[in-house]
Amino acid sequence: MLISQPLSWALPLHPLVVSAHDKESAETLLGAAEFVVIFLAARLLAEVLVRLSLPTLIGELVAGVIIGASGLHLVLPPEIQTNISTNLLHLVSGLSSVPKEMVDEIYAETSVKLASFSQVGLYALLFLTGLESDLKQLLKVGVRALSVATVGVVLPFAGGTLGLIYLFGVDVIPAIFAGAAMTATSIGITAKVFGELKYLKTSEGQTVIGAAVLDDIMGIVILAVVAKLATGGSLAAAPIVKLLAAAVVFVAISLFLSRTAAPWFDRLVDALEAPGEKIVCGFIVLALGCFVATAIGLEAVLGAFAAGLVLSNSKHVHELTALTEPIVALFATLFFVMIGTGFDFSVINPLNPDNRGGLVMAGFLLVVAILGKVATGWAYWDKEKTNRLAVGLGMMPRGEVGLVFLALGGSTHVLSNNLEAAILLMVIGTTFLAPLLLRLVLPGTGGDDPELVSAASS
Amino acid sequence: MLISQPLSWALPLHPLVVSAHDKESAETLLGAAEFVVIFLAARLLAEVLVRLSLPTLIGELVAGVIIGASGLHLVLPPEIQTNISTNLLHLVSGLSSVPKEMVDEIYAETSVKLASFSQVGLYALLFLTGLESDLKQLLKVGVRALSVATVGVVLPFAGGTLGLIYLFGVDVIPAIFAGAAMTATSIGITAKVFGELKYLKTSEGQTVIGAAVLDDIMGIVILAVVAKLATGGSLAAAPIVKLLAAAVVFVAISLFLSRTAAPWFDRLVDALEAPGEKIVCGFIVLALGCFVATAIGLEAVLGAFAAGLVLSNSKHVHELTALTEPIVALFATLFFVMIGTGFDFSVINPLNPDNRGGLVMAGFLLVVAILGKVATGWAYWDKEKTNRLAVGLGMMPRGEVGLVFLALGGSTHVLSNNLEAAILLMVIGTTFLAPLLLRLVLPGTGGDDPELVSAASS
Repeated sequence: MLISQPLSWALPLHPLVVSAHDKESAETLLGAAEFVVIFLAARLLAEVLVRLSLPTLIGELVAGVIIGASGLHLVLPPEIQTNISTNLLHLVSGLSSVPKEMVDEIYAETSVKLASFSQVGLYALLFLTGLESDLKQLLKVGVRALSVATVGVVLPFAGGTLGLIYLFGVDVIPAIFAGAAMTATSIGITAKVFGELKYLKTSEGQTVIGAAVLDDIMGIVILAVVAKLATGGSLAAAPIVKLLAAAVVFVAISLFLSRTAAPWFDRLVDALEAPGEKIVCGFIVLALGCFVATAIGLEAVLGAFAAGLVLSNSKHVHELTALTEPIVALFATLFFVMIGTGFDFSVINPLNPDNRGGLVMAGFLLVVAILGKVATGWAYWDKEKTNRLAVGLGMMPRGEVGLVFLALGGSTHVLSNNLEAAILLMVIGTTFLAPLLLRLVLPGTGGDDPELVSAASS
Repeated sequence: MLISQPLSWALPLHPLVVSAHDKESAETLLGAAEFVVIFLAARLLAEVLVRLSLPTLIGELVAGVIIGASGLHLVLPPEIQTNISTNLLHLVSGLSSVPKEMVDEIYAETSVKLASFSQVGLYALLFLTGLESDLKQLLKVGVRALSVATVGVVLPFAGGTLGLIYLFGVDVIPAIFAGAAMTATSIGITAKVFGELKYLKTSEGQTVIGAAVLDDIMGIVILAVVAKLATGGSLAAAPIVKLLAAAVVFVAISLFLSRTAAPWFDRLVDALEAPGEKIVCGFIVLALGCFVATAIGLEAVLGAFAAGLVLSNSKHVHELTALTEPIVALFATLFFVMIGTGFDFSVINPLNPDNRGGLVMAGFLLVVAILGKVATGWAYWDKEKTNRLAVGLGMMPRGEVGLVFLALGGSTHVLSNNLEAAILLMVIGTTFLAPLLLRLVLPGTGGDDPELVSAASS
């Protein structure tokens, strides 16, 4: 990735002899400064959005855009070929007595490390999503949730993919990728709004929560297949069927293991005496899930999610969730901010005529993403009166799951800058609009109960 | 560090074209496999040691030795120039369709990432050590704890350093480093044994706990100075005095801030509404501590510890501790295991005559380390009958703090292999013997109370 860097080390670029200790100081200073910048910016914007009753996730993305490649150049992802802020460079160079050119090189290393921390955040986030999937509750609303989820996967996927191919002339594989990114449903944002408006225990609320879990499962299966297609480049039927079968079998085995293996896990954890047994055993299962998924040719994120699903049936699930949360709070925030830092804001500048095609595409994806999910409200039969619009809007936010899709798409390099920006705008748009529209549509208490609101936001 | 690696990428070493996705798969497989190996081995040995009523830390070190450079070659630290196990190579190469030579290169990257995760573990561990320092309790046993701590720092430091210089002909700087590593006291191990034997609330128990906190402070100050000396190589009086003054002022300001700034921290945290506020703010303080310490020329670990000290007075300290613990359980375990993986077992093989000098040196350090701390029991005046031997033995285990010193010494490359092994054996020896001897000396309940034992070990 950084081919030029060790070469420049070998060449006499640095007339000053820099001690290993000074270099290490510069690394520590840069790492600590980046950490502070990332978390201060993310926190500041998350606090603003919480006060507007909007999802904090959007704040973390915007924080990344502000400090990143389209903004202050304080934090840059490793794949971006641009220079960090000269202010930061001067500060670190001055404090560590390391020449400025070398700080640039050290920054490249720091950036790779940040990316690997954000990768751990991604796995921890999907593990947590799996842990929080209530499979027993899902069975109760089974058929209805299944039809809502299926419609919510099929309509956006078909509409997005076909529209991009036939209306915008996008290649098949990037179009499929974009379509797949539109299938996600973020349970967290809807659950929070439903909780605030005391709507979580209604039949509509339970349907949406169940369908969102199923959507996660279907979406991650599609993702695992699409990511492989995107890198393999082949659209032959045989490998697609093989991958799809592998992904379905993998998830089916995880669901089976959540009934059979979770009790073994509990007995094992109960028998252990050295401290830290729950989080360590949980993360061993997480690492095994990533290993097995990768070994059979699927994406590691599917393995992380499946590991969470298996343990969602453990009697220690609440402790595991609580122990995983601080890791997600730190490292998944890093993941979201890093997505923002890599975002090229210039491709959505409407004043540049070259961008207008991309913006029209983003608008198209947003409309399909909204309509495709709102339609799910009419995907089931009910003899009682049911608030179909609330169900549809509840399925709308793509949230963090949509971002995971986007990040994996970005790493395969099949998405053009325009399409990447369009997907990000679609994710942000649906995530932003869902809570606003839900509050308009739901005849709730208006979120005046401070206890419930604070419980939902913690 | 890995100058040859990107060069070999540029040269046509790989006739097969390896896709980015296959390379990524190989990275994920290696990373996940290493994680599983490290945590399974650490857990297995920690469970054995817990059942023998011995510190789990030793189990984690031994696990590292077994899977590392002196054992199975499954996990190797980045600085070790040797090949990983061919079994692991074959497994990953087979599963990812990446040629074996490239797996070796990918391993080198994985290893650097593991090292940076273990670095975060080190900072989190010292932050936690700071958080758990009960400064109010310390004031109550102030004078007595101060004399115990001072003797426990001066005797091992002077004895170790002078002995190494005059008896073993070791150079001044490595001798000072080894002496500094002997000043540490691990509060965790003693607190656990005292807890089991219902000895924690006695005057002796409180003295030891207080003195151990002071020892940590003094030891880390010495470390911050010594590490700088080790890399600077100068023994002039002026820079030493300057560094010592900087370290003392830094710690004094931290202690002052723990009274004045902790309430601000609490007000800030209380005002925040987005989730994850406590751990994120705690880690921002941690990163700031590392930044400031490094910026004024001290070690980042001192900053991490000072950040913990500042927040030890927060009303949220218990939640912060609980939120930091899973991070320490994962990443600090990684740190300890990685120390074990880099250990060169061959230098302590007594069958090799070249090693006997090193082993005699290790024996000398161990004896000085034991006597220097046991003597602390007689360092204070008390009109009541007091169990001086229990106090002395309680101060004995070096534990994780000793290892932090060793790891920093290793990273400066001033320690010979022999001396590094001797320090490690001293740390293991004192950590191992302290609980055994304490149980012999203390007239406790014999640890039969299962509730107390489980409370102390969790």
